[in-house]
Parts: sequence; structure tokens; C-alpha cells
Amino acid sequence: MDQFAVADGELLIGGQRLSRLADRIGRTPFYACDRSLLTHRVHALRAALPVGIELHYAMKANPMPAVVAHMAGLVDGIDVASGGELQVALDAGADPREISFAGPGKSALELKQALAAGILINIESFREVELLRQLSAETGYAARVAVRVNPDFELKSSGMKMGGGPKQFGVDAEQVPDLLARIGEAGLGFEGFHLFAGSQNLKPEAIVEAQQKSFELALRLAKDAPAPVRVLNLGGGFGIPYFPGEQRLDLAPIGANLAALLQRSQVEMPGVRLVIELGRYLVGEAGVYVCRVVDRKVSRGQVYLVTDGGLHHHLAASGNFGQVIRKNYPVAIGNRMDGAMEPGVSVVGPLCTPLDLLGERMSLAHAEPGDLVVVFQSGAYGITASPQNFLSHPAAAEVLV
Amino acid sequence: MDQFAVADGELLIGGQRLSRLADRIGRTPFYACDRSLLTHRVHALRAALPVGIELHYAMKANPMPAVVAHMAGLVDGIDVASGGELQVALDAGADPREISFAGPGKSALELKQALAAGILINIESFREVELLRQLSAETGYAARVAVRVNPDFELKSSGMKMGGGPKQFGVDAEQVPDLLARIGEAGLGFEGFHLFAGSQNLKPEAIVEAQQKSFELALRLAKDAPAPVRVLNLGGGFGIPYFPGEQRLDLAPIGANLAALLQRSQVEMPGVRLVIELGRYLVGEAGVYVCRVVDRKVSRGQVYLVTDGGLHHHLAASGNFGQVIRKNYPVAIGNRMDGAMEPGVSVVGPLCTPLDLLGERMSLAHAEPGDLVVVFQSGAYGITASPQNFLSHPAAAEVLV
Repeated sequence: MDQFAVADGELLIGGQRLSRLADRIGRTPFYACDRSLLTHRVHALRAALPVGIELHYAMKANPMPAVVAHMAGLVDGIDVASGGELQVALDAGADPREISFAGPGKSALELKQALAAGILINIESFREVELLRQLSAETGYAARVAVRVNPDFELKSSGMKMGGGPKQFGVDAEQVPDLLARIGEAGLGFEGFHLFAGSQNLKPEAIVEAQQKSFELALRLAKDAPAPVRVLNLGGGFGIPYFPGEQRLDLAPIGANLAALLQRSQVEMPGVRLVIELGRYLVGEAGVYVCRVVDRKVSRGQVYLVTDGGLHHHLAASGNFGQVIRKNYPVAIGNRMDGAMEPGVSVVGPLCTPLDLLGERMSLAHAEPGDLVVVFQSGAYGITASPQNFLSHPAAAEVLV
Repeated sequence: MDQFAVADGELLIGGQRLSRLADRIGRTPFYACDRSLLTHRVHALRAALPVGIELHYAMKANPMPAVVAHMAGLVDGIDVASGGELQVALDAGADPREISFAGPGKSALELKQALAAGILINIESFREVELLRQLSAETGYAARVAVRVNPDFELKSSGMKMGGGPKQFGVDAEQVPDLLARIGEAGLGFEGFHLFAGSQNLKPEAIVEAQQKSFELALRLAKDAPAPVRVLNLGGGFGIPYFPGEQRLDLAPIGANLAALLQRSQVEMPGVRLVIELGRYLVGEAGVYVCRVVDRKVSRGQVYLVTDGGLHHHLAASGNFGQVIRKNYPVAIGNRMDGAMEPGVSVVGPLCTPLDLLGERMSLAHAEPGDLVVVFQSGAYGITASPQNFLSHPAAAEVLV
């Protein structure tokens, strides 16, 4: 992975040599996120997109408070997925006017928190309209709402499809006119639409198509809206490369398409703000997971590096988070970046389960106990997407460098 | 699932109606484990196995302190997989003489803790021999060790294979004579062997075969042991039914085989204690996961029960913990056990991911917001095997009733 430099055979994270960083943290395993890479990613993205497109960070990808605080200073808004995330976003200094909240099963408590905070609530069902009406009447807090639409198309070639067909997310496009009428009757403050068709997509043409269709759908739905559309969140879906053969997303066609949509919007939806919402794309490549080799075993000709880290900290790298077929994440021996390579090495964790596999029969620099294994592309869906308490091993540290 | 009674249309857990239990806990979602079912399972198992077979609880399956304390009073020993589990076992009142510790990546700290506690350490590599020699010399604490053997066969038809071929677990059978010599030279207190060929097996003939082969292998290896074999842990592997068509394990052939091995052991390995080590089999059927319906949505003809629980509490039920093809766990509406059935209902959680699926197109009693969804067979590998912090939703409660 070329986003991290190497000096004297050691990977540099946030400009620090990995072994020194490990000493500074005082323990392994840890997640480390490179602050300058976060900044650089946002700047590069802004440069590729037309001025006027607003950029939101979906903090579910990495809710570490220091990361959220850093991102809050770079992007135009934060998307939260729970009352818990809302607290972190507010602590991080995010402007409540620019926080939006999506999720198919929001509790009454969470809706009340959202009202009190004054954030934008993406309504995902008829029930939420009625509940917000009641809560708003009880508390006197004005409700700012958008409608999360389950579109009548899907984001093709996505890691996960979140629109099209029957879905638990949002309200089916064909039911939205009814919902908008209810929102109007309930006196909620309507601000716009949210469409999220899918995630982890590396095909720009698929993203372009989904954004175009989302725009068209929003235009049609806007006719029934109780107020002008002021914000249109076109979702995200920008993927990052994880596996051999995958290439970084080409932003040029996406930028060109967003420029065209921006221009159309000035005529067809005057005053609207176009938003894209990204999580993994903003943080995924900036983070690594680091664990230490505890033992080197040879079993029937197969080399195993047994580490102090594993699936309890990094479920996705073990292949157990939504993947059908396990593939190796990019892995390196971070303190032996120019070491002689050894083929066929497996990296495992300390858990008593064969699922605890971070790398299977890979080519890695020859490693011994004490060496540091690095799993790249680990800035998103890492520790919070992992069963940390499994087998009661120590928690992973998290740092922003 | 017939292990729980129903009264007035409500499931009874620990003799309490589910809705009352939910009120007593004060929140959903929760895991509830039925104390009497744990006791009954151990008694039924002992009745099916010959007197003299010792029964260990592998607490990784459910490390809730109250469960471990209850099990410690029922079984002959506790198997721990980390220093963290060791603390819970000791707090639970387990006799350190009857605690054993297995794991492929034990840290020096964990080994020192184990020495200080006086428990039996299952050695899994040459490195651990040397480390234990050093630590024992430094501290003066005697080392009690067994050898975890990676056998030269596997447990056929297992959910997970943990022996045979190259493995990170234990020491290859063919390397064990060398390891035993080192243990003798290092002056560690050798007590026996541990063999664990696989898990979650519903075929008694496969378990019988693995236990026979384990016994034979231990007999051969014992010739090179520095001291008589006093304990032989034949592992576990006893499965429980999760999916349609799966039957409960027939214990009769396993009991008959263990009786034969017990008899042989008195002649061929005099003084040995034969142990079997079970986790999931002892606790899995005694527990349920309970969440509440927050919303009922119909999207393009498909009914979704959106609940306050999901994969962040129960990864295995979502199909993302080692399963290749997702299958539905047994699910019911626990407060409408005699309600009219509705086909094709999906049960989802509050997370913004299509992975958050507890039941797909199932036949369930008609349910509305407020009703209680029960996921059965959830006493093992539940909350600790799940990414609790994913999307920062509230933690699940855990109770032993």
C-alpha cells in the first residue's frame, strides 16, 4: 500500500517509525490512523469534485472520537447512525445543523435526543412521522426531517446493496408521496431527501448511474413535498481496494457527473444543497491494524505466525464480516519492509478457533517473535465491527497519529 | 424448541413469563440463560456417560460470570482460553487444580498468571516450554503442564476442524516426542495430553472415531512422556441442532465408547483421568436472545419486523460468524406463542447494513411493535462473539434466570 512511506525498512505511520509508535503506545495490538492521510483524502476528493458539492462523513466507519473531531473540521457534516454516535459527534464539535441521523429502527429515546440536539432526522417509516409529531408536541422542539427513500433501482456491483427491491431501509419510493403528505399534516419541518443505494463500489459508472437516478427520483418526489427541497443527500458507495486486482476508484467521471447534476439542480431544484455521504472512502486507507508476533510455528510444513491480535479486533480481515469467500487483506511485516520474502506464511491470532486468521499462505518478509504485523486498509469497520470480548483477551488500543 | 415451556401464549424462561422477565430486566435486548436447563443438561449428560468420565466446561462458549459460577458447581473443571477468562473462573470459585488453559498464542504475562494460579497449562509450542522454564525459575511457582496435540487425523463432519493437517493449534503429533523430552529437561510437571479435533458435530460415529483415535494416539505418545499420564482430555465436539433437519446428538454410542475407553485406560494407562471438554453443548440450548419489535414495515410486499437488537449482539444469528451460507436460527414471537402465523416475515435490527438480519422470510406469529422476538439456541457464542460497539447502540443485558 503506497500511502505509507518506509524509512530504514520500517513503515511510517503519521511520520513515526512503526516500532517507535508501538513503544509510544506501550502495547500491541493497536489501530493507528494517520491524521495527514485523512486530511489529504478529503482535499483530494474536494479537488476531484465540483465546488458546491457538500461532503459528509458517515462516522459509523470509524467513530473513534479523535477521528470524528478531526473529520468534523474537514467536512461539511457528520452522519450518525445512533444516539450513541450523536453524542460523539457533538462532543467532537460537529455543528448540529449539519448532523443527520439515519437508521431503520430509531427508538423513541433516540428521536427525542435528535430533536433536542436540533439535527436533521432521516425518516425511514410512517411510524417515525407519528412519533416525531408526538415528541415534538411534548417537548416543543422543532423537528427537522428528510425522507430516506428506498429507491426503485439498486447500485450495481456494490459490496452491499441498500436500495432496490424490498428493504428495511427507508421508505419505498412509491410510498413516499403518502409519507410526504403525513409529514406535512404533522407539521414537521421538511428539508429534503436521502438516498443510499449501496456501498463499497469500485465502478465509477455504477456510482454515476445511481447518482443520476437518485437525482431524477428526488425531482419526481419533490413534487409532492410539503416544502421546497433544501438538501438532497445522494449517498455514497465509493469503495476502496482491498484485494489483489482491485484498483482505486476513478473519481473523474463521478466529478463530471456531479458537476452536471449541480448545474441541473440550480434550475430544477433551486436552492438545494447536494450532499454526498462517505465513510469507508474517507478513512479506510488511512488506518492500519498492528499486532505483534508471539510465536512462530511450523506445522506440517506450513509456517504460522501466531500474533497477539486477531478476529476479536479485526473481524473483517478474518473474512467473517459479510464476505462470502475469504480473501487476504493486504498485510506486511511493518518493521521489516525490506526483509527477504518468505512464501506461504499464515498469520493467526491467539483464539482457539480456526476462524482466527489474518492472512492465509501469503508472501511476507521473514518474521520472528517480536516483529510487527500490519494489516492495511483498516481505517474503517475495524474495532467497532469486531467481537472485542471474544475469549476475554485485552482490548486493542486506538491512536490517531 | 421444546426445552422452554409455554404458558398462556408466553414463553417461560427460568419459569418466568417472557414479558414479565423483560419488565424485570427493565430493557431490551437481552440474553437470558435458564439455570435449570444448564443443570438438567449436565445431569442428562452424566447419566448418558459412564461414571468416571470427567466433564469440563469450556467457558469461552459463555463466560458470563453467573453462568461460569453455576457451571463450576456442576462440572469437574473449567477450561479457559485467556488470562481474562482465568480471572472469571477463579472469581466463580472454580478449583485452580481443575482449571486448564489452552490457546495458541499465550503471552508471557498469561503464562505467569497461570503459574501463579497453579492451573494446568496446555502447551501448544516449543516456545512455551522454554518460557515456562524461565518463568518457573524466576518465580518459584511449579509448572503443571499437559501437551496439546495436533493429531494426525481430523474430526469428520465438524462445524470447525481443529486437528489434522497443518494447524496453529497444539503441537503436531510427530513433533510431540521431541517436545516431551524438552519438557522433561526443563523440569516442568508433566500431567498429560489434550486433543481437540473439532467442534459442533452432530454425528456420534464421527465423535466416537475421533475419541478412539485420540486415545490410541495418546497411548503411543505416552511412551515418550517424562512422567505417567494422569489426565487425558479427549476434547469435545458435541454439537447442538440449529437449523431445520438437524437432530439432537445421540449420546448412546458416545457413552458406550467412552465406557470401553475407560476400561482400557485402567489397564493401558493406569491412574489416568479421562476428561471431555464441552462448551456449546452444555450452555447453547439453555439461552435465548430477546429483542423488541420497534417497527413493522412492508416494503414491496415483504414484511420487516425492525427490532432493537441485531448483529451487534448476535453475530452468529446474522450468519456472519463462520457460516458460508446464511441459515435462519430458530426464532419465535415469545409473547405470542399461540398467535396466528404469518409467512415470509423478515426480522432485522436497527443497523444501517443489510447484514443486520436475524431471520429471513420466516413463518412467525403476527407481530407488532412492542412484541418480543426470541432467538433460540443462543446460550453459546452470543454476546461475546458479537461486535457490540458497532454503530454505538446500547449494550445487551445478560441474565441467568
